[in-house]
Amino acid sequence: MQNISFYHTAFIDYLEAKIEVKEPASLYDPIHYILDLGGKRLRPLLTLMTADAFNGDYKEALNAALSVEIFHNFSLIHDDIMDDAPLRRGKATVHEKWDINTGILSGDAMLIMAYQLFEYYEANTFQELAKLFSKTALQVCEGQQYDMDFENRDDVFVADYLKMIEFKTAVLVGAAMKMGAIVAGASNKDQDHIYEFGRLLGIAFQLQDDYLDAFGDPKTFGKQVGGDIIENKKTFLFLKALEFSNDDDQLQLQHLFGINPSDATDKIETAKQIFQSSGSADATRKEIENYTKQAFSVLDELSIPEDKKEMLKQFGHDLMNRRV
Amino acid sequence: MQNISFYHTAFIDYLEAKIEVKEPASLYDPIHYILDLGGKRLRPLLTLMTADAFNGDYKEALNAALSVEIFHNFSLIHDDIMDDAPLRRGKATVHEKWDINTGILSGDAMLIMAYQLFEYYEANTFQELAKLFSKTALQVCEGQQYDMDFENRDDVFVADYLKMIEFKTAVLVGAAMKMGAIVAGASNKDQDHIYEFGRLLGIAFQLQDDYLDAFGDPKTFGKQVGGDIIENKKTFLFLKALEFSNDDDQLQLQHLFGINPSDATDKIETAKQIFQSSGSADATRKEIENYTKQAFSVLDELSIPEDKKEMLKQFGHDLMNRRV
Repeated sequence: MQNISFYHTAFIDYLEAKIEVKEPASLYDPIHYILDLGGKRLRPLLTLMTADAFNGDYKEALNAALSVEIFHNFSLIHDDIMDDAPLRRGKATVHEKWDINTGILSGDAMLIMAYQLFEYYEANTFQELAKLFSKTALQVCEGQQYDMDFENRDDVFVADYLKMIEFKTAVLVGAAMKMGAIVAGASNKDQDHIYEFGRLLGIAFQLQDDYLDAFGDPKTFGKQVGGDIIENKKTFLFLKALEFSNDDDQLQLQHLFGINPSDATDKIETAKQIFQSSGSADATRKEIENYTKQAFSVLDELSIPEDKKEMLKQFGHDLMNRRV
Repeated sequence: MQNISFYHTAFIDYLEAKIEVKEPASLYDPIHYILDLGGKRLRPLLTLMTADAFNGDYKEALNAALSVEIFHNFSLIHDDIMDDAPLRRGKATVHEKWDINTGILSGDAMLIMAYQLFEYYEANTFQELAKLFSKTALQVCEGQQYDMDFENRDDVFVADYLKMIEFKTAVLVGAAMKMGAIVAGASNKDQDHIYEFGRLLGIAFQLQDDYLDAFGDPKTFGKQVGGDIIENKKTFLFLKALEFSNDDDQLQLQHLFGINPSDATDKIETAKQIFQSSGSADATRKEIENYTKQAFSVLDELSIPEDKKEMLKQFGHDLMNRRV
């Protein structure tokens, strides 16, 4: 196993070599645009790293890694349309730069291209990868649907929220790692364990994202701090605060998460205060720690050398200690 | 081989048995809605019939047939959003009945479900089917993109148009039949020939559709006669008329296909007159005949008994003699 930047460079080189100019440009230009926007490339790196961890060759996993990244970017294009988001990674979203029809169709093409990347593998591996991919991709759609449904529901509970982020975010992290294990020829047991590691870490990661959205340092947090509060998102912080609060605070929270003031400074401050005073902020940090610990404990089950487990653990730590 | 209605019944029975109620309802209800709207089910029938023609068992081809039908309906949902179409088969389109976000996400889920249906086949067949499916699905996206691009282009020629309908419509007919051949274990040569038969017949079918749109009998033609003329579509009839016309008629056609009168009766009449007088209507009928003949001549190459070739030919005749 190598360090993160090694895999990052290898992946970017491969991505750039594989992306070819194709006609019609109106279909393929937006695909190149979003793939060139950058990002952490977290999921494909996990695929490559996992292949190496199971004594495979990360090079063999490049097509699977690229598939995961193309799928992730497909979901970003379509989600950005649904969320009416103008910006993605500081640049115009595809449907803003072009139009909604372009976003829909270029996204569709990317979903198909993601499957095509499995064609480089022999039939049995192909089938294993494609099955895992389909199951995961459908869960990601279901997660996005739950996320949209929650906006109009008043009966969302913590368990619903956890299932939503598991589907929308965590299963793809698990699948990205399992793909690396499949390509490396790991045993079914190891495949399942590494999937579980990724899934649990993915939930911790998303909870951390929600936490930083409210309590992150504006200087280092990439996005606008308080964005979820402004958008009245029913995150773990909000749902736990509701659960823990007295009647007065509950009413105030419900009220706050039903208004859209032009200056949201006070709204954000009050919400954060209730998140703290109710014990929700503490509970969220504890939940992140729990999921991270659970993820690490799964590593013990893997039949790989200790130093490789240590590297996977280190990667998990880096991920969870990020402030951005 | 059986008659059409036999395969139709078998397919509908299978479709209804396979469609299960799943959560979240907001994602899956629209999928059941569009699959229940009916339609000719032409593509899946071709898959079943082809499996039988190659001495396979149509029952083995039911999952591939369902995949083709689900993909086709996925493309209808997304195309209807892009074309801003309020009606599909006389009922509200998915994005009209629900909203655009629902149309996008339910469509995405259907594309994934189409791939999942191949999981019932063993690894080699799975890979063959999925490869063909991906190639075809990407061409369908490209065809839809060309179709949209043509709306804003003044330099569309007959060859561009033929490529567009080949991608948007014909390749899926070819693929539907080839899937039946793959499942039946037909030779590569037979697979390629039956694909070619479907592709050529698909082009003839779409040209026929364009022709009937202008010259069909309003009593029997399902859609509004003249719809393409109202929408200024650059169909074969229009492009050939431009090619064949004198300068005056060219100018008039260009003018007609740039206006959107509230009462289109005169526009439709004048356009149809030029289609006739220019020789475009005749040329279109001849082109349909050419493609149909070419398709039939490919049947001679197949290594199946004459009576099965005759049945495929009969099906082609029925298709091309339809008035609806």
